[in-house]
Amino acid sequence: MAEEPKTGGSREGEDDQVVNPWEVTAKDGGKIDYDKLIEKFGCQRLDESLVQRVERLTGRPAHVFLRRGVFFAHRDLNEILDVYERGEKFYLYTGRGPSSEALHLGHLVPFMFTKYLQDAFKVPLVIQLTDDEKCMWKNLTVEESKRLARENAKDIIACGFDITRTFIFSDFSYIGGSFYENMVKVAKCVTFNKVVGIFGFTNEDHIGKISFPPVQAVPSFPSSFPHLFPGKDNLRCLIPCAIDQDPYFRMTRDVAPRIGYQKPALIESSFFPALQGETGKMSASDPNSAIYVTDSSKDIKNKVNRYAFSGGQDSIENHRKNGANLEVDIPVKYLSFFLADDAELDHIKKEYGAGRMLTGEVKKRLIEVLSELVERHRKARAVVTDEMVDAFMAVRPLPHMFS
Amino acid sequence: MAEEPKTGGSREGEDDQVVNPWEVTAKDGGKIDYDKLIEKFGCQRLDESLVQRVERLTGRPAHVFLRRGVFFAHRDLNEILDVYERGEKFYLYTGRGPSSEALHLGHLVPFMFTKYLQDAFKVPLVIQLTDDEKCMWKNLTVEESKRLARENAKDIIACGFDITRTFIFSDFSYIGGSFYENMVKVAKCVTFNKVVGIFGFTNEDHIGKISFPPVQAVPSFPSSFPHLFPGKDNLRCLIPCAIDQDPYFRMTRDVAPRIGYQKPALIESSFFPALQGETGKMSASDPNSAIYVTDSSKDIKNKVNRYAFSGGQDSIENHRKNGANLEVDIPVKYLSFFLADDAELDHIKKEYGAGRMLTGEVKKRLIEVLSELVERHRKARAVVTDEMVDAFMAVRPLPHMFS
Repeated sequence: MAEEPKTGGSREGEDDQVVNPWEVTAKDGGKIDYDKLIEKFGCQRLDESLVQRVERLTGRPAHVFLRRGVFFAHRDLNEILDVYERGEKFYLYTGRGPSSEALHLGHLVPFMFTKYLQDAFKVPLVIQLTDDEKCMWKNLTVEESKRLARENAKDIIACGFDITRTFIFSDFSYIGGSFYENMVKVAKCVTFNKVVGIFGFTNEDHIGKISFPPVQAVPSFPSSFPHLFPGKDNLRCLIPCAIDQDPYFRMTRDVAPRIGYQKPALIESSFFPALQGETGKMSASDPNSAIYVTDSSKDIKNKVNRYAFSGGQDSIENHRKNGANLEVDIPVKYLSFFLADDAELDHIKKEYGAGRMLTGEVKKRLIEVLSELVERHRKARAVVTDEMVDAFMAVRPLPHMFS
Repeated sequence: MAEEPKTGGSREGEDDQVVNPWEVTAKDGGKIDYDKLIEKFGCQRLDESLVQRVERLTGRPAHVFLRRGVFFAHRDLNEILDVYERGEKFYLYTGRGPSSEALHLGHLVPFMFTKYLQDAFKVPLVIQLTDDEKCMWKNLTVEESKRLARENAKDIIACGFDITRTFIFSDFSYIGGSFYENMVKVAKCVTFNKVVGIFGFTNEDHIGKISFPPVQAVPSFPSSFPHLFPGKDNLRCLIPCAIDQDPYFRMTRDVAPRIGYQKPALIESSFFPALQGETGKMSASDPNSAIYVTDSSKDIKNKVNRYAFSGGQDSIENHRKNGANLEVDIPVKYLSFFLADDAELDHIKKEYGAGRMLTGEVKKRLIEVLSELVERHRKARAVVTDEMVDAFMAVRPLPHMFS
């Protein structure tokens, strides 16, 4: 497998598709070509046999996101499953850049999936809040970045993580000690030219940006968490994330063996599409491009009805005759993320695709599903106290994290 | 005063003199041209009136290094003295990159001078041990860098610092919290192009080097030490250092007002010359170029007699006739650092310069002076315990640091 970072992160390239941690843009306003991305990044497709292996090993059905291909690519997932099959354990690492007050549904995807992985494999989890990154990229103050990190932690906790197996940390509060030592070890192995190739930095970028990649790299190494994994330097790490984060971990995997560490494995998702259609990720600057976890049922109804791009035909007559184009239809796409019932989803796709169901009916069902999801999240978040945030973020051992 | 960093740190320039934190080389093997350095760096000459003002304000004679021009340049020292004259205080910041087991006499110079400043002004002092820097530049392991930092801390403590006013820290042990927040604030303000201009980095340098300047910058800001200076964000900082460190603080002074902080002031020394002559700093790779604090009296005698470059003439006859060339004579140079008695030094210079005193006699006196200095240091270091190192490096308030 090609580990050598390619120029997938830079703006230049043989095609116009741009996918890096700060920009996701499809070619000519079309859809992201995920096959091309897999080839370019050098990761592997997550095939049906691997999904079945996960089901067999965990003794439970695969998560909707897994069996419907939302998580579609990986690096060394098979090795993680080998380790698990031998009776050993691993840990999970995911994260979030806290740049906004409220999360949207796309932000929930990796956390919902990570919770499933934690429950299914019964493994510890570290969650990094990159408040330093957002302070540098979004030009927020340190104080505002730290506040957003705590606010976002509440939404993350509301996803139902097990406090006996979960350590949440923000960079501003946790960086130091072994974590910083690992940052230095990684930084020594990566030239400026290399980060230019991987991330597309320029000479005009500030050195805060240039110093950041090691910060996101080192939670991949158990020795960055001496309170959790003392003496377990060979513990493997599995990172669930959206595929735009792949550049960080290509770099990490390239460096790991040179500093005597295990390479992290990855399980990577496609992007949750904007209401307006599947040309990239949702835009934080356009509140009507996404459903937020703070939206009311009325907001959701309004946004879905007004903005969700429909694959239905322009007249009922035409629609009855030709059916909806499911490939571009956002309501169906959203239902495939959040409607758990496979039979119902199949029914909708069949009837809608054949023109027997109208866009209005599909949107109505979507509004129900999203309102329920958001209401459930709102209730869960309402009971997350500051004390719970402190408890999840406390630097502490997790004595039962593998049991 | 020109604050905008110039290309003094880079290898290119209108002359061949190279002075940056990692290289000090005079033009064509000659002497460092300090006037040119002052002009190039944009700092100011420390003139006689400023020395007199220091004496007046502290009520004690100026240190030998000050009255003999070892510390010869400054930035805003007058402002620090204004502050002090108004009855306010400031703090001192100096440091060391722990790259070797034993210090040589040149390493002691800033610490001996800093101790004088601490005693004379009765102010707190922070001492940074950049073990992370040495780990990155010298390719030492993290563990070896940390060990050297502690060993060097013992030599520093042996210089006699007041534990009630001194906080020693190593980057690997202290970086985090407010210190890291300030690193991010500084890094946001400095582009890659800028560090290329200041430090001469290249695209082939690793990002560890590129991320380091903020680490050395932020001890200039009191908010990096919340256990020492809570609520004292406007406390001024004075940095005694060799002038090769000026690039770091040019950068720091450039950034400070943009992040709402005070610019640090500087008091800068020339370089302690190698035994072989005044063409730059001593070389850590040639043990015969320097007197180490671990050298025996026999070692000192041998090194001075064999290697100390003499300005005496090639025959006694010639010497009696023409006298010694004091400008290039290392024994006289070393005596001017370490022989405290002004009258005796003047006598030696006069007699030696006139040819009435021979090199052997001057070297004999130097051997006495250095042996006594090194013996005093050895005794002081022998009683520095690990517990004392822990005590100096403990993150703690210093309640009487200004009294």
